[in-house]
Amino acid sequence: MSTYLSFDIGGTKVASGFVTLPQPLNGEQEPVVTNRCEIPTEASRGGDDLKARIVALAAQQLERASAEGIAIAGIGIAAAGVPDSETGVIVSATDILPGWRGQHIYDAFAEITDLPVRMIGDVGAHGLGEASYGAGRNSDVVLSIGVGTGIGGAIVMHGELFTGAHGVAGHAGHVPSALGQGFLCSCGTREGHIEPVASGTGLKDLYNHRCEELSAADKPAPVSSGAEVASRAAAGEQLACSVLADSAHALGECIGGMGNLIDPDVIVISGSVVKAGALWWDALRAGFTDSALALVKPTPLVEGELGGDAPLIGAAAAIDRYVRANHMEPSKA
Amino acid sequence: MSTYLSFDIGGTKVASGFVTLPQPLNGEQEPVVTNRCEIPTEASRGGDDLKARIVALAAQQLERASAEGIAIAGIGIAAAGVPDSETGVIVSATDILPGWRGQHIYDAFAEITDLPVRMIGDVGAHGLGEASYGAGRNSDVVLSIGVGTGIGGAIVMHGELFTGAHGVAGHAGHVPSALGQGFLCSCGTREGHIEPVASGTGLKDLYNHRCEELSAADKPAPVSSGAEVASRAAAGEQLACSVLADSAHALGECIGGMGNLIDPDVIVISGSVVKAGALWWDALRAGFTDSALALVKPTPLVEGELGGDAPLIGAAAAIDRYVRANHMEPSKA
Repeated sequence: MSTYLSFDIGGTKVASGFVTLPQPLNGEQEPVVTNRCEIPTEASRGGDDLKARIVALAAQQLERASAEGIAIAGIGIAAAGVPDSETGVIVSATDILPGWRGQHIYDAFAEITDLPVRMIGDVGAHGLGEASYGAGRNSDVVLSIGVGTGIGGAIVMHGELFTGAHGVAGHAGHVPSALGQGFLCSCGTREGHIEPVASGTGLKDLYNHRCEELSAADKPAPVSSGAEVASRAAAGEQLACSVLADSAHALGECIGGMGNLIDPDVIVISGSVVKAGALWWDALRAGFTDSALALVKPTPLVEGELGGDAPLIGAAAAIDRYVRANHMEPSKA
Repeated sequence: MSTYLSFDIGGTKVASGFVTLPQPLNGEQEPVVTNRCEIPTEASRGGDDLKARIVALAAQQLERASAEGIAIAGIGIAAAGVPDSETGVIVSATDILPGWRGQHIYDAFAEITDLPVRMIGDVGAHGLGEASYGAGRNSDVVLSIGVGTGIGGAIVMHGELFTGAHGVAGHAGHVPSALGQGFLCSCGTREGHIEPVASGTGLKDLYNHRCEELSAADKPAPVSSGAEVASRAAAGEQLACSVLADSAHALGECIGGMGNLIDPDVIVISGSVVKAGALWWDALRAGFTDSALALVKPTPLVEGELGGDAPLIGAAAAIDRYVRANHMEPSKA
């Protein structure tokens, strides 16, 4: 059993914990996360400040491990933005994290520790966690899709995160969908991506857009979140039901297309929107079946199992693979 | 240098040839195809008959090699349908090849030769050929898309064809597109796939569909092929120009979505439709740019280089990799 120090760096908070991975990987033992702590991201303070506070948090956590006699075998980082796992540099980041792009994370950690460090994207870490120890743990090729504030994804093959030529692979939200035409995607297009009508935010926007089109007499109040669309649908409101079903069906069709292209063993769906209920899941599966080729139709669409711990566990899986591939296991306990 | 006997089994003909691959792979030497021959598929005679005639052709070709003193190191097969490369069985096939599904190809070849045999899908072989020795030869991750009678594709990673869980991976024609809504796809859906409006057949159907909507006075005669749409567009006909541009733009958007999901180093486009001219290519590239994420936009979209030889060369690449991975190189020349 190896224990790693993990970080999950997001737009609102930075989470950390010690992740003990089961060895050998046999599908029966589960990873254990302990010594959790978190700090607010406070993105407006800029990338340099954020990096410095993460490294300070790492130093604290390593002291804590040392005091408790816990051997840390390496550090795994799940980072927002697009990180380069080889160089440890943040290649790209959105405006949510000003000054995050260009940060040299490995260099900063090297100033406080000699431990091996491995950084991957947070959405990739989520997928790697689910593929290694969650809903995809017995599958060779896993397509992981996160449907939350936005829509992201990851492709895991033979236990390795597939990152593509520019670290971008897995961006499942930015595929064409007729339903998305005219809606502004976070990537800037209005040509019709699935994200702006099927993420949590997208559910809200699609509902409010259709709401506008109703006559004053029939018009319900606008919603402020995707969760509100789901709760109104659960209460039987017709508009909410049709928005939830159309959105999930369109997303299911897109996932069917991804299934035809990648042909994974399993498709794991996570994120806040998967809690929208049976109406959402039924429509998602119907859309998938309508679009998937005959041999792809039986591919299981399953809900993620690791919840909010998935990125921490996936980051630990990434450093674990790196340490083993490079024979860097500590010789002493 | 190794020479392989290759087959390309399609719906109308079975092509064969000796493929000599350059070794080591250095990007400067080209594969050479000699001793070409072909027989009509005559699909209506059924799968058993087809298999028997292919094996008879193989026996002839091996005799020819023997007579000419050419050492054949193995046999590569590019097969229509979905073959299982491990077992040599055709897992799935369309109605174009009745009785082809379920055929045991390796067993049939074993009756005439002890040479190693490797079979992959014809579209996959096309992609593997282009990725190994054609337009993608210096790239690590290659997305190959064939736009001909239908739309197919292949994903090649680190020199290996990625086939997915059911041998289906790469089916690039079966992804959602708003333009395709209502058009019957070869897979059976009318929900809106890109193939029925962007393949050669799709260009024809989209043109004739829009033609129907024109008033009698303005109505041109229907077309009988995608090539006719391209030639009318080249002659300046307005309807043909708009059909070609809309179709290519929609396909480009889908390819942008695939780029966001897979993030390849290069995207190679082949097939009869790539000869449709600059209007088609410009619209394809514009659609790609409209849909691709910032980091994906610079990914080169290039035309395939191997033409009709791509499947034969890709099949040779597949058996070559298999022979080398299993240390089955012949000890004598």
